[in-house]
Amino acid sequence: MNDDLYKKLHGFYVEDLKLGQEAFLSKTITEADIVNFSGVTGDTNPVHLSDEFAKKTIFKKKVAHGFLTASFISTLIATKLPGPGSIYLGQSLKFLAPVFVGDTLTVKVKIKNIDLETKKVLLLTECFKLDKKILTGEAEILVDSKK
Amino acid sequence: MNDDLYKKLHGFYVEDLKLGQEAFLSKTITEADIVNFSGVTGDTNPVHLSDEFAKKTIFKKKVAHGFLTASFISTLIATKLPGPGSIYLGQSLKFLAPVFVGDTLTVKVKIKNIDLETKKVLLLTECFKLDKKILTGEAEILVDSKK
Amino acid sequence: MNDDLYKKLHGFYVEDLKLGQEAFLSKTITEADIVNFSGVTGDTNPVHLSDEFAKKTIFKKKVAHGFLTASFISTLIATKLPGPGSIYLGQSLKFLAPVFVGDTLTVKVKIKNIDLETKKVLLLTECFKLDKKILTGEAEILVDSKK
Amino acid sequence: MNDDLYKKLHGFYVEDLKLGQEAFLSKTITEADIVNFSGVTGDTNPVHLSDEFAKKTIFKKKVAHGFLTASFISTLIATKLPGPGSIYLGQSLKFLAPVFVGDTLTVKVKIKNIDLETKKVLLLTECFKLDKKILTGEAEILVDSKK
Repeated sequence: MNDDLYKKLHGFYVEDLKLGQEAFLSKTITEADIVNFSGVTGDTNPVHLSDEFAKKTIFKKKVAHGFLTASFISTLIATKLPGPGSIYLGQSLKFLAPVFVGDTLTVKVKIKNIDLETKKVLLLTECFKLDKKILTGEAEILVDSKK
Repeated sequence: MNDDLYKKLHGFYVEDLKLGQEAFLSKTITEADIVNFSGVTGDTNPVHLSDEFAKKTIFKKKVAHGFLTASFISTLIATKLPGPGSIYLGQSLKFLAPVFVGDTLTVKVKIKNIDLETKKVLLLTECFKLDKKILTGEAEILVDSKK
Repeated sequence: MNDDLYKKLHGFYVEDLKLGQEAFLSKTITEADIVNFSGVTGDTNPVHLSDEFAKKTIFKKKVAHGFLTASFISTLIATKLPGPGSIYLGQSLKFLAPVFVGDTLTVKVKIKNIDLETKKVLLLTECFKLDKKILTGEAEILVDSKK
Repeated sequence: MNDDLYKKLHGFYVEDLKLGQEAFLSKTITEADIVNFSGVTGDTNPVHLSDEFAKKTIFKKKVAHGFLTASFISTLIATKLPGPGSIYLGQSLKFLAPVFVGDTLTVKVKIKNIDLETKKVLLLTECFKLDKKILTGEAEILVDSKK
């Protein structure tokens, strides 16, 4: 791959980013997503996979894996803002409410800090069901410089 | 499902847990894992999927998604310690080194604090390649009480 | 694999095909099919994956990927007519109407031309929802000769 | 979903597009991709799945499904140019050379014509292995107008 194509595939460079810049992703959680996430991760907790077990829990029905929801933050960062080329340094996650089959998630990332010296970028990372915030946290990303 | 079966499927209750208690998971990362994790999450960043793009990055070859590695922490918590019935409240993640196809991960969780009043349990969560720590962080889990 | 087994696994040879010969496939499109096709291809367009986004489009609900429907043409050609051993040279596709979760597709291929010299076979390729044609086009296939 | 979020998730509108505008995707074809595509489509032709059968064909080893390669064109159109909101009207495909496990594909789409009246956009669609063109064709897309 030549440098020209590499740059066309690459996301934002650190110099291109702006404080307050945002990106969004929208995704409805289906039963297939929960089954597939269980398959990839091996997380076979019956709260995700068994209707009968789930009925006995405080949520009364199966919930999506918290990390399934959280992984869409990573997807948004890796594909949109800052996009391809980003290197994940850290993430904090607070799970605020359960996600059920049929819920449509809106994932939002917003740039809170840019350090041109270290090329580290801090993002506020949030997930919503309609207007209800169900996940919050921060991501720290290393972003390539054009120089 | 009757209460007896529910309890047999359920993991540890908060009264059963001990400070310092540990659990482990071992998993070799294959190309199929990376492909499937991309599929489930939609994270098609070419650093994970394109040999040619990856050659131009500092890692020189395709890396696993950080959240693929991190999701095995969730798997270990949800299936072993504390196990089924656990509710995820929060997780922090620091990514220390890349993971490549063929790397075998050891995931370790260890109980750092137990609050019987709030039923909140804090775990140290770490991933290793052989002896090299590649991911560290903490998980906060809500664990059912027998009462 | 010996030649005898190879021939038993092989589909039609060009000399065996007849003008007007047809084959059919029937498939109900489920949410899991759409989720999995997104996963394999990385096509995460929210028209396929987000109920909320889809509501704002002219179709008012999530639609299947056009290429998911189209890929069943390829499946029918590769498994039935002419079957294993076929080499795809070309395909044209006109998408005539959307496909939704729960729609049952009938896929039909019909031989329009056979050139014994070049071993190229032309097929009319169509997909229907009940009697409504939703996809049409032609496939050009290279088919092994017995000689 | 409010109109504002819908627009943030939406791709290009027809008025925003320019003749000659391009987008790219890079993807290494792995064995997992071929297996997963077989699973989703049911295309179990042994030229894709059986080493022994494939040895007897002119390609001497397993080839990727032509429609797997082609589907990345759809992915690029649906996620980048014109992006979310695009409606597929048609696609032509000429398969020029086989794709094997380990090949890295570059997919390229380029705008050839824009009709602001009908909102139909024509794209040249090509796939390459390094510099070798292995698939060519055209896509016709209906793109939303801002009006």
